[in-house]
This record gives sequence, C-alpha cells and structure tokens, in this order.
Amino acid sequence: MDDFRLTCPIPIQQYPHVTLAHGGGGRLMHQLIEKMFASAFDVGKERERHDGATLDLPPGRAVVTTDSFVVRPLFFPGGDIGKLAVCGTVNDLIMCGARPLFLTAGFIIEEGLPMETLWAVVVSMQKAAEEADVRIVTGDTKVVDKGKGDGLFINTSGLGVVERNLSVGPSEVRPGDVILLNGDIARHGMAVMAVREGLAFESRIDSDCAPLAGAVFSMLDSGADIHCMRDCTRGGLASVLVEIAESSGCAIRIEERRISVRDDVRGACEILGFDPLYVANEGRFVTFVPRASSDRALAALRKHPLGREASIIGEVGARGTGLVTLTTSIGSSRIVDMLSGEQLPRIC
Amino acid sequence: MDDFRLTCPIPIQQYPHVTLAHGGGGRLMHQLIEKMFASAFDVGKERERHDGATLDLPPGRAVVTTDSFVVRPLFFPGGDIGKLAVCGTVNDLIMCGARPLFLTAGFIIEEGLPMETLWAVVVSMQKAAEEADVRIVTGDTKVVDKGKGDGLFINTSGLGVVERNLSVGPSEVRPGDVILLNGDIARHGMAVMAVREGLAFESRIDSDCAPLAGAVFSMLDSGADIHCMRDCTRGGLASVLVEIAESSGCAIRIEERRISVRDDVRGACEILGFDPLYVANEGRFVTFVPRASSDRALAALRKHPLGREASIIGEVGARGTGLVTLTTSIGSSRIVDMLSGEQLPRIC
Repeated sequence: MDDFRLTCPIPIQQYPHVTLAHGGGGRLMHQLIEKMFASAFDVGKERERHDGATLDLPPGRAVVTTDSFVVRPLFFPGGDIGKLAVCGTVNDLIMCGARPLFLTAGFIIEEGLPMETLWAVVVSMQKAAEEADVRIVTGDTKVVDKGKGDGLFINTSGLGVVERNLSVGPSEVRPGDVILLNGDIARHGMAVMAVREGLAFESRIDSDCAPLAGAVFSMLDSGADIHCMRDCTRGGLASVLVEIAESSGCAIRIEERRISVRDDVRGACEILGFDPLYVANEGRFVTFVPRASSDRALAALRKHPLGREASIIGEVGARGTGLVTLTTSIGSSRIVDMLSGEQLPRIC
Repeated sequence: MDDFRLTCPIPIQQYPHVTLAHGGGGRLMHQLIEKMFASAFDVGKERERHDGATLDLPPGRAVVTTDSFVVRPLFFPGGDIGKLAVCGTVNDLIMCGARPLFLTAGFIIEEGLPMETLWAVVVSMQKAAEEADVRIVTGDTKVVDKGKGDGLFINTSGLGVVERNLSVGPSEVRPGDVILLNGDIARHGMAVMAVREGLAFESRIDSDCAPLAGAVFSMLDSGADIHCMRDCTRGGLASVLVEIAESSGCAIRIEERRISVRDDVRGACEILGFDPLYVANEGRFVTFVPRASSDRALAALRKHPLGREASIIGEVGARGTGLVTLTTSIGSSRIVDMLSGEQLPRIC
C-alpha cells in the first residue's frame, strides 16, 4: 500500500484536513487544484483556470453521461470511490457503443476529510483513467461544513464518440435475441456490504469494478451484430433486465443455473438477506445479440479477461408482456420484477 | 408562488419525502426519473434508461465543463440551487466562447427532503434551461442517509460548441487590453448571506443569477475582437482578475470608482464584514478587449439587458509582475490578492 502521506502534493503537516477555505475560491482552493488535481489529471492549468476544457472530438455521434458516487465506505476490497467514479461513467459510455474519451470530475468534500484520503482517491482516479484510456479534463471542488456531507462525493460526467455505424439500445432488442453475461454476479455489492457490516468470510470478496471497453470492443470488433448492452450496476442484473423488457416491450426468459454466483458471494447474500440477482455489479454487463451472432459474440467476449466466464443466460421472447421470467434451478419459474424498496443503500 | 404540492408529479400524500429507496435502483427510483425528471427535462425516456444521451453536435470545437452546487439555503432572493446549477454551467461554457447546447444533471439528495422541494428545484431548472436555450439530456439520482448530506446537492456538466473562429482565454490577454464589466457586483453573495444570516434590509437584495449567452453573443456579433471573458463567481471580481493576471503574466490595473456596488449591497457587506470585490456574482463577467475594439464591445454589451450598466473598469499593463492593482476612490492604490481563507462558504 502506498503511503499517501508521503506522496501527497499538499503539505500534510500544514493542511492535514480539507477545510472550508479549500472550496472558497481563494488561494487555498487554487493550490489544491493546481498541486493536486492538475498534477494527477489531464487538466491543462490554463484550461482549468478557464472554466472549461476545449476539445477536438473525432467524427461520430457524441454520447454524454453523468453519475454521482456516494459509496460508503470510500475504500472497499477491489476498489474505492475514485476507481468507481471513473469506471462507472466510462462503462455507461461504452454501453452506448461509444469510445470513452473525456471525463469531468466534481468533488463535494466534507470539511475535515484527511488530505491524504483525498489524495489516495485522486491517485486511484488517475490510475483508473489511464487503464480506461480516458482523460480527466476539467473539474470542480466544493467543500461543505462538517456534518453536512459524508467525507467525499464525486460526480463524473463522460463524453465519448460512437465511431462505428452502430445503434445499440433497448429499442433494438428483438424477439429471439440471445442474452450474454460476461461473468459471475453480485460481487461489488457484497464487497461493499461485507466491509460495511464488518463481516469476515474465509475468502475476501473483491468488487468486480473494472472498465469494460476492452471486453466490449473485442465483441464489436468480431463483427457480431449487437442489439443492446447494459451494465448491471444499481439494482443488479434483475433490474436492468426488467428495464430492458419494459422499454422494448419484449418478454425476457433467463435461467438461474446459467447465472454464476461465487459461493462466498452467495453465502454473504444469504447472511445479509439479499438476492444476488438484485445486487450491484461494477464490471458485469448483458449483451443482446441475434442468435446468428451469438457464437461469434461469445467467442470474442471470452477472449478478453473480463469475459472469460461469459455465458448465455437467456433469451428474448415475444413482444407484448414486457415481463422477465426466471427458470429456477429446480425447474419452477417466477416473474422477476424491480424491487420497490431500498435494497443496498450507497453502494455506488 | 406556485404551489408545488399541487403540481408535483409524484403523489405527495404517498411520498411526502425522498427516501433511500428513491436512489436504490428499483421501482421508486424509476418512477422518480420518469415522472419527475423525464417530464421536466429533455431526457428521452429510452435514452435515460440507456445510460447516456446520444447527440448530434454541430461542427466546431467542443467545450465541456462541470460544476457542483451546494448553496445553502436552497432558495434565496432572485434564485435557487436549480437556477444556479443551470446558469452557472451555461455561463462557464459561454465564457469559453461556446454556445451552450446540452447539460447533464446529477442529484445527491439527503433522505427526508420534501418531495415538493425537489419538484420546485426541478421546475426552476426547467425554466432556466428554457431561458438559456439548453437541453438537459441525461441525469443521475443518488440518495444519502439523513445527516449525511444537506438537503440537495446538484452537479451539472455542460457541453457546448465554439462555432466561430474564436480563441478566448487568459493566454490571449495582451498589454493595453481594456477590461469591461457588465454591471454592479456582489449581489449574489450578499443575497444568499442576507437570507442565511436573517438580515432584513430596507430593500431586498436579489441575486444577479442569470444566463449570460445573450449579452456575450451580442458582443461577439458586433465584430469586436475579444481576448478573454470570465464570469466573476466564487471569489468575486478580485479573484478572477488575480487568476487572469497570474495566468497571462500581465499586470492589471482597476479603478474602484468605476466598479459599481449598489448601496444596499455595500451596506450588507459592511455589516457582515465582506469586501464586495471578493463577493460572488452569478451574472457578472469581465471581458478583455484590445482598446481599438472597446467602444464597439461596450456599445454592443450595453444593448443587452444584462449589460445595460456595463463599463470600463481598468486595463492591462505590462507583462512581468502578474499583479492586480486597485486605485481606490480616494486616489491611493493597493495590490489586490486572492484571499487565503474562506470568505463565503457555500454560496454556489
């Protein structure tokens, strides 16, 4: 583990904590922006000081997306709020078929946050942005008084470009489409909940948080015809399938035995009373492809480390009901709906 | 005043307050997005459900910007957090010479926020977006537990396009440039502080919060040569001038008697111990123009309601010091620096 006290570009002895003045528009805020954010991100100093970033976009339709991150705790096995803030927004762009290019970063910091904690998060964002091949080009810093926040909230907005002649989305879903899933589910939510609840399991559950560009572009490059992609974040696999079934008006059938859940994750779900189908992931996505393309898409996906365990988990039925049906491992079937209450607060 | 209880698209009787479940990724969150956000904003239902918005951008360099808003209280004379969130980000785009086109909106809501309050803010954002001629195309909703936020924080990110062959920014500032200001200063900060401190003055101080596109494009359309623009938000007029002086390396001289401060605003500043030069504005900006263009720029600016009281407040001196000097109304002069501490917490 890095010692963030030693590498922090703000002198920790002098400023051990973030203060209200770090968000006040004066000298301290400018030092924070220049020494910390501009040194770690691709924020041109002058551009940063000039309210926004001017960019040259490659040809293609632009895609924008935004996400705020309020995960508690800030650090969890397999990730932290910074990695999540980069991967989450990058993945939203990728799910629209866009190549992620630029991110903005808005920090809402609670007064008293240790400076080294902020730095650790910033370093994590830098690493994740490098891995995802995106540039963090502009940002904003606000500080709220103690007791009016919770350490750190981060908003990232993303800008990408659809370079291909590609139209993906729920409206493209067709009866007969096959549904692929790139790996086991429910790890992110359980990684966060386990550390929050202080649960100790024999094996540590790591979040699956990861940028999905490689896996997705491997599939797109294969020439497979892709109808829709969606990452299974808040609300889990179940909620995204219900959303897509409702948007497209098509029935969806999935088979429980084809949906992989690690034993320790299943155990944690049982202890805490969660259904893995509804637990958030941060590196898992479903892909809807016509049957004729499914072998090609699956083979391409499996070539990528984040798709090695990809499988077909179900298919799209007729138009009309817009319902999701699960065939359980004992052969019965049940309707899968969205949850009406709160299952996992603040997992992203 | 509208009765937001009556017009709120979420049934207030059933859901008087925002709950954690409204951010949980389940049915309640989807109802909130569809009934409230999608009805008020330009969020295509399917696009919203599809992680991001796909856009056709006109030709030109793209500009992105981001800002989080944590103003306290949420409503103040002349505006509210919603209007501020739209105008603030739109103005940042305009200051880069870009035509604002699209906004994203990320809500971080504290559990327990009255539903009608959220709706009032959303309606205000809708109005401001209409006035500023931008579309709010995608968003995100997070809910944090009671005591871990402060009612409502909003992030807006903006996307615009520089349609002209225009390069504006601190690096374009030149010795001899004239500095224009479009009106009286310090109103926004004092409007917020007066209501926060419960001060009553004879006249109500309204925030100057407004979208600046009309005033700026009037100036650009006049054919005046524009070197740099900057809105005088957090840190006030003084801080933006110091920033620009430091970035450009040029000295800046301003004259106090040319900088207009309303009497009631000056009174409020005196009572609360603030220097109006450092108090935030949300509808004021400085423009740096070569002397040969200053008459033309000033005349064009004065034609617009938000520039009617525009004036020349100073000029750019030689390269080298990068210092800002103020000639006071009694004829003495002093160096203007950034504040090192916090002056006005949470005014935007």
